[in-house]
Amino acid sequence: MKNSLHHIISASQFKKSDVFRYIANARRFRTESAESSVSTRFQGKTVVNMFYEPSTRTNCSFQAAAHKLGCNVISLTEAASSSKKGESLEDTIRTLGCYAEAIVLRHPERGAAHRAAKASRIPIINAGDGNGEHPTQALLDVYTIYEELAAFGLNIDSPLTEITVCFVGDLKNSRTVHSLVYLLGLLANVRFIFLSPKSLEIPQMLADIQIANGHQVLINTMSLDEALPLCDVLYMTRIQKERFATEFEYETVMANRRDYSIDGERMERAKQQMIVMHPLPRLDEIAEEVDKDPRAAYFRQVENGLYMRMAILEQLLEIHASIYVDNPMHANSSSSLSGEQHNT
Amino acid sequence: MKNSLHHIISASQFKKSDVFRYIANARRFRTESAESSVSTRFQGKTVVNMFYEPSTRTNCSFQAAAHKLGCNVISLTEAASSSKKGESLEDTIRTLGCYAEAIVLRHPERGAAHRAAKASRIPIINAGDGNGEHPTQALLDVYTIYEELAAFGLNIDSPLTEITVCFVGDLKNSRTVHSLVYLLGLLANVRFIFLSPKSLEIPQMLADIQIANGHQVLINTMSLDEALPLCDVLYMTRIQKERFATEFEYETVMANRRDYSIDGERMERAKQQMIVMHPLPRLDEIAEEVDKDPRAAYFRQVENGLYMRMAILEQLLEIHASIYVDNPMHANSSSSLSGEQHNT
Amino acid sequence: MKNSLHHIISASQFKKSDVFRYIANARRFRTESAESSVSTRFQGKTVVNMFYEPSTRTNCSFQAAAHKLGCNVISLTEAASSSKKGESLEDTIRTLGCYAEAIVLRHPERGAAHRAAKASRIPIINAGDGNGEHPTQALLDVYTIYEELAAFGLNIDSPLTEITVCFVGDLKNSRTVHSLVYLLGLLANVRFIFLSPKSLEIPQMLADIQIANGHQVLINTMSLDEALPLCDVLYMTRIQKERFATEFEYETVMANRRDYSIDGERMERAKQQMIVMHPLPRLDEIAEEVDKDPRAAYFRQVENGLYMRMAILEQLLEIHASIYVDNPMHANSSSSLSGEQHNT
Repeated sequence: MKNSLHHIISASQFKKSDVFRYIANARRFRTESAESSVSTRFQGKTVVNMFYEPSTRTNCSFQAAAHKLGCNVISLTEAASSSKKGESLEDTIRTLGCYAEAIVLRHPERGAAHRAAKASRIPIINAGDGNGEHPTQALLDVYTIYEELAAFGLNIDSPLTEITVCFVGDLKNSRTVHSLVYLLGLLANVRFIFLSPKSLEIPQMLADIQIANGHQVLINTMSLDEALPLCDVLYMTRIQKERFATEFEYETVMANRRDYSIDGERMERAKQQMIVMHPLPRLDEIAEEVDKDPRAAYFRQVENGLYMRMAILEQLLEIHASIYVDNPMHANSSSSLSGEQHNT
Repeated sequence: MKNSLHHIISASQFKKSDVFRYIANARRFRTESAESSVSTRFQGKTVVNMFYEPSTRTNCSFQAAAHKLGCNVISLTEAASSSKKGESLEDTIRTLGCYAEAIVLRHPERGAAHRAAKASRIPIINAGDGNGEHPTQALLDVYTIYEELAAFGLNIDSPLTEITVCFVGDLKNSRTVHSLVYLLGLLANVRFIFLSPKSLEIPQMLADIQIANGHQVLINTMSLDEALPLCDVLYMTRIQKERFATEFEYETVMANRRDYSIDGERMERAKQQMIVMHPLPRLDEIAEEVDKDPRAAYFRQVENGLYMRMAILEQLLEIHASIYVDNPMHANSSSSLSGEQHNT
Repeated sequence: MKNSLHHIISASQFKKSDVFRYIANARRFRTESAESSVSTRFQGKTVVNMFYEPSTRTNCSFQAAAHKLGCNVISLTEAASSSKKGESLEDTIRTLGCYAEAIVLRHPERGAAHRAAKASRIPIINAGDGNGEHPTQALLDVYTIYEELAAFGLNIDSPLTEITVCFVGDLKNSRTVHSLVYLLGLLANVRFIFLSPKSLEIPQMLADIQIANGHQVLINTMSLDEALPLCDVLYMTRIQKERFATEFEYETVMANRRDYSIDGERMERAKQQMIVMHPLPRLDEIAEEVDKDPRAAYFRQVENGLYMRMAILEQLLEIHASIYVDNPMHANSSSSLSGEQHNT
């Protein structure tokens, strides 16, 4: 049971109680940060950020989070690593496990984090694996929804609360959306509204899970203008050109991009007590003029990422220490290299 | 008034008293460094180095300076960041402001640092914006001139001191020269000698400002051989191929590159009490044999960069702390995202 | 005499007593690590990792080692540095010497580390120079052999001990093999077995040195199957495509790559008390199934790298401190720039 938390691979590994424990810890770090308290608790521990794809937010927030816990950080990109020489992901992970206490991994292939976890003797945190999952983004998104809706008197930890969350854009390929939809379904009574071009619809399996769990799911049954007055949370995403097989398909979708974008005028249709979120980076799906609207929560969402990632790292480093401190020579047992004991 | 120091964007934002305060602080750090004293004063603070162009000196010296103040550093390049996904500079800056206490920015576009400062809620330090400015290089250059000429009995903080400074090379595109000429004009009575190929002359506006301030300005009125015996400071620069529209123009200039270069023999024409400076990297405009000449100050100039950048970071982090500590939740006020309160 | 240890350039600079002192210190760090003790001994010191070629193990283990000694780390790649602007290696090294207390250098050109040391006023550690040397890898390899064979009752610090070490693969271009063969020859009575394709044989000079020192040297006198039962240490290497002049030569060699590879079946021919080593990364010369064999020592070898690099950095930082603390203004003497005083 405990083992299932050695790695952070998928939103589906969390129970409701796990999520609220992370939220409580993230809130504690926010308070401590406001008091400028400095931690040396994990001094001498090392976190490796191994990013095979570019990233600003996820990479920097994990680095900042590790620093604020007192850890050292080693930051690697594919270009600077031995993967250029044909080394397998597994061998790279086994190597990094000799120098560090946790690995934050972003990789272009779906399933890469799971493969890494199987090979690793230290905790792996999935920071995005292709069009698979992005569970730490989902946790920080849930934390943001929790904080922001609480300010409106909506408490998502109550079974009586009902909220409407509308996802807009590329719902097929967004790993962030996949992970978040799963987590939200655990926490509250949610009406999901999914709005996307036909070719970028939410995977049917994900929708079916939410329906089976008793949530209401509406896929492209209305326009964004019709959905806006209903939303407690509007979750925007970027439509990525590289996801399309042909230029023609992309152009077809983008011809209607206004249907999946917001600006100041459109925001007039939304409630006063609602929030707009976006995992960022954005292109033009949110006009810059919306930034000044108090309902624009996406930069507060960025800041919440720092505290949530501190909470995630804290828990993994504590579990890791409790397992390994008693057996410091574990590295020299060949069985530890198979990594099976960590397999979730 | 105080706000004008929240960011370091342009040499033109400094008054004479600002420059001498920075010099005094840099000298203090040099003394402390000699005593191997270690600071933990800004422990828990984070500085982000965001470099969209390559750099060895500026990047490393800011990293080393931040470390020596007890800060953590996150180092980003364009290739590893979300700018690859089409994110605007402003959104990247807003994001980094959620994780750090200061941003050091190098960018290929003139004006980028100013745009960044408008969007940022934390201090921006312009570490070079295209062919615009490089104000921290100018500060360390002035510090170097102050220290080195003081050893010859020339005190540039006295209104009675007159010095001759000769700039050589690409004076049109060198952001370092632009920032330094401005600062020097504030501090002492300077005779400026500008020597360059015709197509790379100092911008007329910069020369006019110095003339209006009562300084003597000589643009290509003599050869380098004629100028050398007059110089207290000889400031060499690199002629960069990429600045030329055609290969032919470049070749034409380089055919005469001996006119803008020095070697051991030519140095015999210079005074015994003078210094040679260069922002580096150099190509062949200073022969390696000159390195052993005690007048070659360019590697002492490099070291001075460390102490000056400590002085700059110290001041920004102190101002930042005094503003924000009392209002730690500033991030959640949407108005703070417009960044206008920081606009210089 | 003392000066010869200011830099780590070549395995040939070490005496037998040096090697065993490094091993003793590495073992001490392993013990301290097991006790989770945290060092702040070199707090405020900075190590620069300057890697002109990609690396996972060497780069990360030096970063982790520096952190564990309490140092700060600045990590640079060629793409992000001024070498892109035509700066010489020497000038880059002189610059880094103004910000740091040691430089770890990987460079594609043989002899680069020696050139760097001549220009440097702070210690240079050669982390691989083209097909030249990789002395810190050799030290960690010797440390691994020492530890692992001691468990079998073979003490390589005794002049009576005789061991058989078989090197397999590209023995012409592997800098790791070159450095290790040299060191091993100092320490024990060694029977060297070299197995490689004809075009990738061990340089004759290296073999001759070992023969002159009284060791037995066998170059391609048997097959890997014949050698396996004799080995105390089997040292595998990767055959690198980029080393071949033509695709045809490479394909010819690779047609016989089974002759230079091991798998579980082949390992049945080896003794029970022997170890398999590899500097990594590996391609297919060691099948993954071998990882579970207790004789597979290559990931223990990786971990040993951390402790050995702590021992190396510790010694250099101590020597550096003892020389420079008394003369903190050394930077301002032009003679220190020539670097000749560091030349080994």
